Amino acid sequence: MSDKKPQEGRYAYDGLDRVLHEKARLGIVTSLAARADGLLFTDLKNLCQLTDGNLSRHLTVLQEAGIVEIHKGWKGRRPQTLTRLTDSGRKRYLEYIAVLEAVLADAVEAARSGRKVKKVLPDGFSPA
Amino acid sequence: MSDKKPQEGRYAYDGLDRVLHEKARLGIVTSLAARADGLLFTDLKNLCQLTDGNLSRHLTVLQEAGIVEIHKGWKGRRPQTLTRLTDSGRKRYLEYIAVLEAVLADAVEAARSGRKVKKVLPDGFSPA
Repeated sequence: MSDKKPQEGRYAYDGLDRVLHEKARLGIVTSLAARADGLLFTDLKNLCQLTDGNLSRHLTVLQEAGIVEIHKGWKGRRPQTLTRLTDSGRKRYLEYIAVLEAVLADAVEAARSGRKVKKVLPDGFSPA
Repeated sequence: MSDKKPQEGRYAYDGLDRVLHEKARLGIVTSLAARADGLLFTDLKNLCQLTDGNLSRHLTVLQEAGIVEIHKGWKGRRPQTLTRLTDSGRKRYLEYIAVLEAVLADAVEAARSGRKVKKVLPDGFSPA
């Protein structure tokens, strides 16, 4: 046994939910997490600075994953769309946040422990 | 002015570097950040639990972005590949961590403030 053997899967981050980790969706779900009664499409678009097409596309992914629910309605004669987190979506988001906290703790620790930069290559190595 | 108007771009997360945010690359760069003298391909593969093909593909993305440097060498007659963070890669990683900390603070705040779940839809809305 060598004490230099790296810990298998130490940085695999299996729990980092790809549906929620994607940058735009992370913004969308964080916006919605703050508002239990939901957000209108227009407000969500402004908060996340997404185009109509991009927001629609990401909402479809989130709806198919059961993370958001989408409600159609009217304000006078104008159609409106209200989006909310589902209960299971909120639960999944909380789990994601817990994993993200662990990743960040790793990252801060890594950044601190690896601060000393060696400029010399080990024997037998040359730049590719 | 309405106090209900959402803050434009509040959750756009522009600073969330897509090259580093991707789940596998986040694991790779965090592994490397902890080790100033670099990691061999095999060790990196084990730490991140990636296939040869996946690790190669992500390392190419990171190398093209100037985040990692790749060195070829030999151990006896066996070829070896050593990967290290570049100085600018480390800087970019530290910036990413700072943004991720802000996102996480947002997420924790959102999860707390939106805890109360309303089950009733506003007037004029029905499930889509």
